[in-house]
Amino acid sequence: MERVSELEAFRAACDRARAAGERVGLVPTMGALHDGHLALVDEVKRRGASFVVVTVFVNPLQFGANEDLGRYPRTLAQDLEACEARGVDLVFTPDDGAMYPPGFQTHVEVEGLTQPFEGAHRPGHFRGVTTVVAKLFGLTGPCVAVFGRKDYQQWRVLERMTRDLNLPVEVVGHPIVREEGGLARSSRNRYLSPDERERALGLSRGLRAAAQAWAAGTRDAAALTEIARGPVEDAADSVDYVAVVDPTTLERLDGTVSRALVLIAAHVGPARLIDNLELGVDPLPA
Amino acid sequence: MERVSELEAFRAACDRARAAGERVGLVPTMGALHDGHLALVDEVKRRGASFVVVTVFVNPLQFGANEDLGRYPRTLAQDLEACEARGVDLVFTPDDGAMYPPGFQTHVEVEGLTQPFEGAHRPGHFRGVTTVVAKLFGLTGPCVAVFGRKDYQQWRVLERMTRDLNLPVEVVGHPIVREEGGLARSSRNRYLSPDERERALGLSRGLRAAAQAWAAGTRDAAALTEIARGPVEDAADSVDYVAVVDPTTLERLDGTVSRALVLIAAHVGPARLIDNLELGVDPLPA
Repeated sequence: MERVSELEAFRAACDRARAAGERVGLVPTMGALHDGHLALVDEVKRRGASFVVVTVFVNPLQFGANEDLGRYPRTLAQDLEACEARGVDLVFTPDDGAMYPPGFQTHVEVEGLTQPFEGAHRPGHFRGVTTVVAKLFGLTGPCVAVFGRKDYQQWRVLERMTRDLNLPVEVVGHPIVREEGGLARSSRNRYLSPDERERALGLSRGLRAAAQAWAAGTRDAAALTEIARGPVEDAADSVDYVAVVDPTTLERLDGTVSRALVLIAAHVGPARLIDNLELGVDPLPA
Repeated sequence: MERVSELEAFRAACDRARAAGERVGLVPTMGALHDGHLALVDEVKRRGASFVVVTVFVNPLQFGANEDLGRYPRTLAQDLEACEARGVDLVFTPDDGAMYPPGFQTHVEVEGLTQPFEGAHRPGHFRGVTTVVAKLFGLTGPCVAVFGRKDYQQWRVLERMTRDLNLPVEVVGHPIVREEGGLARSSRNRYLSPDERERALGLSRGLRAAAQAWAAGTRDAAALTEIARGPVEDAADSVDYVAVVDPTTLERLDGTVSRALVLIAAHVGPARLIDNLELGVDPLPA
């Protein structure tokens, strides 16, 4: 496994791989890798990548002024070990100055899909995400890129960007990987004390309740929303949203629904957590 | 020469060329091709392109509500003939619906460089340009793309976008091609009556005056500006700007300058015309 921090050296390594006939697959991460990330590495191989690139970059552009950029976990030595053990070929670890040199002034912006939910609670967040991912696509030239569906809205936004800008990349969303008990894997789970980790289960408990109601025949969007909301409100310090939406457009649903995604964001102690479940599609949180 | 209007067929044709080892070169145009455009075709070959792609698309996104989208000249049959005669390999002629299908919602935006001059007089113009060029880069996958320097600010904006988004494309600006008498070649020259075409020479006359003053030793930015402005004001119906700027940052200069670009935009009859000259670098307008 090779590790590169310099931008043009990274581009050259990807170019060499493509020139040698490899199918380059990309897994963009902010590091602090966990089993969820490593499942993305497996997935990109399943999608035909013969040369797997993982990028580790805590992208300042996607953090708001009052967010956790400074304390976001950095565990590079372990990340590199984990990548090597999982069969990654190339890890890109640029610094902020390489990605955003003086004079940088270009952004990629997706409009409608970025407005609600995470976009409303984290102004500028998706603009930072789409910009950095467009850059990573430009540098890497991947055939396929895999993102975790815990960030479900992000996945849909990146799908949209890729289609709208005609980028020659297959964007894949990989199902959420959960801990025992149901908590969605997240680098931010490290912020949680044992008690908070217990309370954080309220999110997956809300999803499970909605999934059980769905399995029992409930199809009313408002009812499903309230069923999901109960356990979240009981456990979290505050709730940003619990919503039942169309899985493609992310528009809130009402009345009887035939397909639905439950989206949750809530604060538990120092962590802002998100989770989601596609009803009747995703497996029940453990 | 092949002509393709369908998006995925175009992508496939470019993919085939690259797979066959060709170096793909791109010349994006809005059609109504003139000698200026055809010089770009020659230039892209000089830059090593072995497979030359010309796109012909009157991009609605870069026209303001009160601009000339509806009457912009469309001369496709002649354009195709001219491309074939010049040794173009592939012409892409998409329609609006192919480029901007329902649900399209992504834009690429360059900030600082797009604010003055054309950006100030044509709000949203550069956002339309950068978005469509990003899309054409995504579809074509070119090594090199050539743009005319009549649209000097556009060239700088596209350079910036390409660098900022790490797109693997060499962006080249080709010197202005002029008619006898000095008028910069432009598809919009077709709007001019014989009398207006005569008056339109005021723009290149202003540039020539500044260049002659430069050659005679004038280095004061304000003096150069006024020297350039005189002939433009005498001839045009109205002047949007005459400015002496830094050729890289496009910031207005004052005091003594060692390197400068003169930018002009003015209205003559039904046409809004732009022109520019890099003092001490570009040849004098004939």
